[in-house]
Amino acid sequence: MKLITFTEQGVTRIGAIEDGKVIDLHAAFEKKLESEGKLRFKQIAEAYVPADMNGFLQGGKESLDYAKEAVAFALKHEKYKGKQLVFSKENVKVEAPVPSPGKMICVGHNYREHILEMGREIPPYPVVFAKFANTVIGPEDDIPHYPISDQLDYEAEFAFVIGKRARNVSQAEALDYVAGYTIVNDVTYRDLQRRTLQWLQGKTVDGSAPMGPWLVTTDELSDPSGLEVVLTVNGEERQRSNTKNLVFSVQYLVEFLSGLMTLEPGDVILTGTPGGVGVARDPQVFLKDGDVVRIEIDGIGALENKVKKVTGEISE
Amino acid sequence: MKLITFTEQGVTRIGAIEDGKVIDLHAAFEKKLESEGKLRFKQIAEAYVPADMNGFLQGGKESLDYAKEAVAFALKHEKYKGKQLVFSKENVKVEAPVPSPGKMICVGHNYREHILEMGREIPPYPVVFAKFANTVIGPEDDIPHYPISDQLDYEAEFAFVIGKRARNVSQAEALDYVAGYTIVNDVTYRDLQRRTLQWLQGKTVDGSAPMGPWLVTTDELSDPSGLEVVLTVNGEERQRSNTKNLVFSVQYLVEFLSGLMTLEPGDVILTGTPGGVGVARDPQVFLKDGDVVRIEIDGIGALENKVKKVTGEISE
Repeated sequence: MKLITFTEQGVTRIGAIEDGKVIDLHAAFEKKLESEGKLRFKQIAEAYVPADMNGFLQGGKESLDYAKEAVAFALKHEKYKGKQLVFSKENVKVEAPVPSPGKMICVGHNYREHILEMGREIPPYPVVFAKFANTVIGPEDDIPHYPISDQLDYEAEFAFVIGKRARNVSQAEALDYVAGYTIVNDVTYRDLQRRTLQWLQGKTVDGSAPMGPWLVTTDELSDPSGLEVVLTVNGEERQRSNTKNLVFSVQYLVEFLSGLMTLEPGDVILTGTPGGVGVARDPQVFLKDGDVVRIEIDGIGALENKVKKVTGEISE
Repeated sequence: MKLITFTEQGVTRIGAIEDGKVIDLHAAFEKKLESEGKLRFKQIAEAYVPADMNGFLQGGKESLDYAKEAVAFALKHEKYKGKQLVFSKENVKVEAPVPSPGKMICVGHNYREHILEMGREIPPYPVVFAKFANTVIGPEDDIPHYPISDQLDYEAEFAFVIGKRARNVSQAEALDYVAGYTIVNDVTYRDLQRRTLQWLQGKTVDGSAPMGPWLVTTDELSDPSGLEVVLTVNGEERQRSNTKNLVFSVQYLVEFLSGLMTLEPGDVILTGTPGGVGVARDPQVFLKDGDVVRIEIDGIGALENKVKKVTGEISE
């Protein structure tokens, strides 16, 4: 299933993509319950298929099953009792699938061939760092380039989203705790990242985590290995690798991170970026106004955003 | 005003401390409105003085004023229409004042005399790093020591809490965006902090941010400078400094951080720790089961937690 968050008529809620159409999951489930004569249809829909992604993911596989029933109902009843349940993609704005993750955990130096080509050793532990939720923008948003640095850079990342509370989970069971996969561009202000020992200040600028276009659930994409990752800028290839080259796999990261902290539904983990980032090129090249950055990952799709220079006063 | 979060009869909500008593702010405001004959008392109370701290802080000064009215009402009516509005402190559990901050931003190397005594130069920019909300525990909780490291260490920190959405705020206006001040112990697993370039994995272990005992609002504590900070372990002094020694003041940090990202009500910023942490002592000394760590800061009070070794299986 391809889960999205979308806005239509100013209201943001979760949806599913089927045959290029957008199904309003909360509304569809509510109307399905109503059609079955359930008098508590509003409350049951709110409990199991709420309109926000974090709430929906908290419901786990039970809620996902109800969402599938909702999709089947909506495909038979595009409108039910005056309520539109299905929209064409052009008539809605697609947002980041997880607009407000509780945690965004990023892994550094995780592509084997890139580490080796740089003459480094394979690290014994993952390097992990943070972004905050203020960074998240959607697949139809521009990447804001604030006038605080000239060194705006891209990082193509395969990301997974937690679907079940996880603490001390073994690699063998790890994938049961993953809701699905998406693409994140770990946009970085390089000079800010490097001006102190810790990277956070160059990593968590507003709008620096384009995410999407959707969350592909694990029933549709069961194996996170072997997926080609390609990033282009204005059509020119800059990064290419494959998730089979990850030093620390999705399963390993679930075990490692859940051994330190409780992971919650809606937490997003970025698995690292392949070689070819702008700062490491010779000569260095950074993003500029109007550049189009596109990331494609097998089994997910493409995330494409344009860079937009922010000028003048920033509204508070 | 001293704002708390507390649990009584299994229900967690915000309160105020007055003369050692706990006032249930949401309930008190609701009953005040009811006593005035407002038929929409429930909805108005939910809108302006909700039971959770982040929601309450979103209401800004308007909600704080209503909270003060609620306190005045409750001091006259400890029980109103069968509803208890005032509790003795012994009969409730005091939690962290902000149990679920959207962001926890920590500043490293920020006490001038400690930097100089270490022979370092005053840094041109603050070092900032993250903890996540899974770290937060309250003043009556034990600090869990998970069996993942022997190097559990303390860090006394003066912390401020954002009270108003902030983006590109100048130092001159910074304090208008601060709701108040509290104490946080930035508990750190030193070897985990240092085993990779980035500190996050040693900083965001579950339960590693005792916070409290309350949030002192800026109308009661107007000047964040000149406050003595003292940390003891089992009564023995280990850290002592004064917030006048901060290289980067509260005002500077609001300007600096809001120049990078949007700060939201309920975000917590830890301003750094003085010299004297366990890892820097000769010989090194780390926390062990049963140790009592106490942090006192002028104008706020004391935060005291016991260390408790976690053994065996951790429940998920």
